[in-house]
Amino acid sequence: MARPLADLTLDLASLRTTYASGVSPEAVLDEVFARIEECGDPGIFISLAEQDALRSAARALGGKSDGRPLWGVPFAVKDNIDVAGLETTCSCPGFAYRAAEDAVAVARLKAAGGIAVGKTNLDQFATGLVGLRTPYPVPRNAVDPALVPGGSSSGSAVAVARGLVAFALGTDTAGSGRVPAGLNNIVGLKPTLGAIPTKGVVPACKTIDCVSVFALSVDDAYAVFSAMAGFEQADPFSRAFRTAPLGPPPPRFRVGVPTPSTRSFGGDPAAEAAYEATLADVQALGGELVELDFEPFFAVAGLLYSGPFVAERYEALRRFIETSPDEIHPVTRLIIEGARRFDAGQAFGGLYELAAMKRALSIPLGLVDCLLVPTYPRPRTAAEVLEHPVGLNSEFGTYTNFVNLMDLCALAVPGRPRPDGLPAGVTLIAQAGADARIAVIGERLHEMGGTPLGALGLPAPAAPERAPRPAPDEIEIVVVGAHLSGMALNGELTRLGARFLRIADTADCYRLYALPGKVARPGLVRVGDGAGAAIATEVWALPSDKFGPFVAGVPAPLGVGTLRLADGSTALGFLAEAVATADAEDITRFGGWRAYQRARAAA
Amino acid sequence: MARPLADLTLDLASLRTTYASGVSPEAVLDEVFARIEECGDPGIFISLAEQDALRSAARALGGKSDGRPLWGVPFAVKDNIDVAGLETTCSCPGFAYRAAEDAVAVARLKAAGGIAVGKTNLDQFATGLVGLRTPYPVPRNAVDPALVPGGSSSGSAVAVARGLVAFALGTDTAGSGRVPAGLNNIVGLKPTLGAIPTKGVVPACKTIDCVSVFALSVDDAYAVFSAMAGFEQADPFSRAFRTAPLGPPPPRFRVGVPTPSTRSFGGDPAAEAAYEATLADVQALGGELVELDFEPFFAVAGLLYSGPFVAERYEALRRFIETSPDEIHPVTRLIIEGARRFDAGQAFGGLYELAAMKRALSIPLGLVDCLLVPTYPRPRTAAEVLEHPVGLNSEFGTYTNFVNLMDLCALAVPGRPRPDGLPAGVTLIAQAGADARIAVIGERLHEMGGTPLGALGLPAPAAPERAPRPAPDEIEIVVVGAHLSGMALNGELTRLGARFLRIADTADCYRLYALPGKVARPGLVRVGDGAGAAIATEVWALPSDKFGPFVAGVPAPLGVGTLRLADGSTALGFLAEAVATADAEDITRFGGWRAYQRARAAA
Repeated sequence: MARPLADLTLDLASLRTTYASGVSPEAVLDEVFARIEECGDPGIFISLAEQDALRSAARALGGKSDGRPLWGVPFAVKDNIDVAGLETTCSCPGFAYRAAEDAVAVARLKAAGGIAVGKTNLDQFATGLVGLRTPYPVPRNAVDPALVPGGSSSGSAVAVARGLVAFALGTDTAGSGRVPAGLNNIVGLKPTLGAIPTKGVVPACKTIDCVSVFALSVDDAYAVFSAMAGFEQADPFSRAFRTAPLGPPPPRFRVGVPTPSTRSFGGDPAAEAAYEATLADVQALGGELVELDFEPFFAVAGLLYSGPFVAERYEALRRFIETSPDEIHPVTRLIIEGARRFDAGQAFGGLYELAAMKRALSIPLGLVDCLLVPTYPRPRTAAEVLEHPVGLNSEFGTYTNFVNLMDLCALAVPGRPRPDGLPAGVTLIAQAGADARIAVIGERLHEMGGTPLGALGLPAPAAPERAPRPAPDEIEIVVVGAHLSGMALNGELTRLGARFLRIADTADCYRLYALPGKVARPGLVRVGDGAGAAIATEVWALPSDKFGPFVAGVPAPLGVGTLRLADGSTALGFLAEAVATADAEDITRFGGWRAYQRARAAA
Repeated sequence: MARPLADLTLDLASLRTTYASGVSPEAVLDEVFARIEECGDPGIFISLAEQDALRSAARALGGKSDGRPLWGVPFAVKDNIDVAGLETTCSCPGFAYRAAEDAVAVARLKAAGGIAVGKTNLDQFATGLVGLRTPYPVPRNAVDPALVPGGSSSGSAVAVARGLVAFALGTDTAGSGRVPAGLNNIVGLKPTLGAIPTKGVVPACKTIDCVSVFALSVDDAYAVFSAMAGFEQADPFSRAFRTAPLGPPPPRFRVGVPTPSTRSFGGDPAAEAAYEATLADVQALGGELVELDFEPFFAVAGLLYSGPFVAERYEALRRFIETSPDEIHPVTRLIIEGARRFDAGQAFGGLYELAAMKRALSIPLGLVDCLLVPTYPRPRTAAEVLEHPVGLNSEFGTYTNFVNLMDLCALAVPGRPRPDGLPAGVTLIAQAGADARIAVIGERLHEMGGTPLGALGLPAPAAPERAPRPAPDEIEIVVVGAHLSGMALNGELTRLGARFLRIADTADCYRLYALPGKVARPGLVRVGDGAGAAIATEVWALPSDKFGPFVAGVPAPLGVGTLRLADGSTALGFLAEAVATADAEDITRFGGWRAYQRARAAA
């Protein structure tokens, strides 16, 4: 029998269109079951939900979308996250238990209309970045079956890359939500710690675990993230978190990249070339590259397995590892038992070291809007990894291990392709809470890279045009000087969660001055209609509860007033007191602060 | 030779007056040296700065105050805090080293004009609350020499209580800045963690250590605290912190107190009676008592010595304790070596438990503005403590041990006196950042208690009249309804750092309505002059950077506008849209929301 939905791509937009055309969630589920059957990879799922139960759940959604963001969307769940009624194995049959309740993350997805179809394979106890440390068959890499699928969220990444589900949940402590995304040419969103509650997730390192999302596009991953994010009283590690809306990327931004001596590709020139091609893309997008010494980041990573943080993994499994050590994968056991060499004092010592390292790294991180790194140095075959199971696992974590320890968020996207067709991903990294900032850059890089999606042979998704409008809880701020994107004070905006909306000219009733003083800054002064000129500005959206803190930082003679823009709209912005321009150079003829600065630099 | 300054009380105001009258800092130092000599207690100081060096430093201040807040103020420093050029012993001669630099806290006090005269005795390595665990002579309790002085900051508390210095630094991890204050009838301010950098302090439990202040009044303690507070990049545990100005206490507030079954006075009825007398004071001051089950707080405390946090003490001394165990006081060593039974996994387990306990306790803590507890269950003699060195030490920590683990701030003040003249202190406790909130209540309780100061026989200081005016970085907010002090939404103000300024009536151009809806709330509507009435309001000061977050929480039909007050001033406040009052009861005749609520409750 021909399958009517055989050509359906399971991204959210396609699903919405399909449902709008009258197709039922049951029909989509049938297609999902058929694909799982057909793909012939017994390593992807450890267990599937009962088809009859899922069909009833699908029928219970009603025949037509009720507008919930994930209405009728089939997804997979990594098998260290509880789904009520299914076993949670963590890839260790001796550890398995039947979950009585959904993890908070899963419950929120179901509440948003999603359908959990099954539990996916992983490196046992989410310890590993390769996908091989499992007693079940290893999921096949979706791009090249000789390669490891990546881990620990191996099954979730492959399920998405092969088009079996619309998205899949992973977890990420040291890179498990990024490395497999990179190895399967899909998107892996590793949110800010605590943004998604981890209640109902079997801990790896409880202080730095998070739930992650695999999807075919950044847009989908962010929508799924938004459906799960938010405070949960019952989870002591959850945080109050505001999922910012996505908008256009800023025209300029600063990107931290490793200095040449701290870049590592495991001797693979194609990996290096692909990364450099993506760096060219990010520059074309307006990113200014800032080289940073990554040794201090690598030192942070050293705390994770070589240092006392491995004891979190031991603590999570203490009872099991002490009573049933032989049930554990030998490599996994070797790693976790390494925790035994650390005493409690050393655990605190690790926390002190980490605190000091984070404080020191706040300086370079303050210089940039985000970091851009290869997701891993180079892809590796299963044969290579089996020969060096710990060493090559560590290699995969070069650019991922430090991220959660430092309380950063990250987003892995396919980058520019390699000539040999092997996967070559990049990861954007930014400070906690900046998930939206890297999402809008990441989706452009994904589009520019043009790598076909997963194993689907589909083109990379076009980054959606995003409305340059503020959300209801944001206000527009017009900036004309050092707060412009890429300029010295832009960080004052972005640290408060502001996001770029659009470039705009003022109406022709303003004159621009270079104010005297140690720090070069412009002053915009209102004059009569037509007596000024259109001055280049940027309009940013600022969370309205951050307006006070932002304005509080602005020194006289600048003040906040309402500006008229050339398109007839108005917005709040900085105006200078006219009295302050008495000794100031009139630079209206340059048409904007950026042009004036450029002219001065050239002079 | 008669000493001309023999009668000078070394509080900050008296010192300022003395200096204004032409007395030199050198003369004050001479008096300090004479008092230290005369007091005849060799247990207070472990070392003193060289008199000649201090005299030169005093001369270098110049003959007249330059306005720095601590100009010419002599102070003492607990001997686990570095003072450049002096030994830091931690009360362990084998551990001693000569400090090359001032601790950040000391450097800031010197920069404010203070003069560090010497280093004070302590329970070795700041481990203890009794003051007896020292190889040096034990400082004598300033109130009753039979009692222990309290610890670990024994010498600092006694130095202040005996009038030898104007203030003294302590440290506080588990109560070391509060218990000795309580036992010597002085003030002990234990600030928010990280508010004062701890760089240059020998750690006890590095994650929860803080520098504390002993002084004769809350006013002095807060001034000293303010001189030391603020971010320090080089200290990874320091926080950005704003020292709020002090104002009048709010007319109403909610005070959490232990339920009768979780109150403990070690069988001392006089201690219980004194505490209850202070509770009557706090009620007279406007405090509404809210009984809370303290068992969960005591469970938090269990993590400190019985749980893995003791390993922080081990880690701080690892090298020393492993190479020179015999140099350590036997009780101290017994306690710290207890850490050896915990492995690294258990240390993380302790962090998880603490996180869960903090999250659970956020609910009762959210119901109150502060806690009010006895500083310790009952005073104890040295003889008693020597018989039960660990058990009675733990008893002293009943109401102090949980505070730093939970990231709370605290203030110990003398409470109502006991009939037998033994010391009876109380401690106010509040959430991180609320140091100012408890200070303005604490200074009133101190005054009302009327206990003579330390060993000085001086009356408790009168709480200063504080100007009901906003600081430059605050704005005035007029509240009329549930945001009034003691009412349901007042926490929305206090959590944002707002502080009460004054009670005020509006001008007679407002009418007050009880708005219909599930939640009772008033609406104030502007009418013609004389067509309304004076409505009772409270004026609060809100940090100006918090105006946005506060206003963002206010639902329609309420909005923010400018209100006219009866005294002719204006301030921002909530106004209702007139349209919303169509079906609302006009309650103007009650003159205010509180009176209306009272009348309704009585009806």
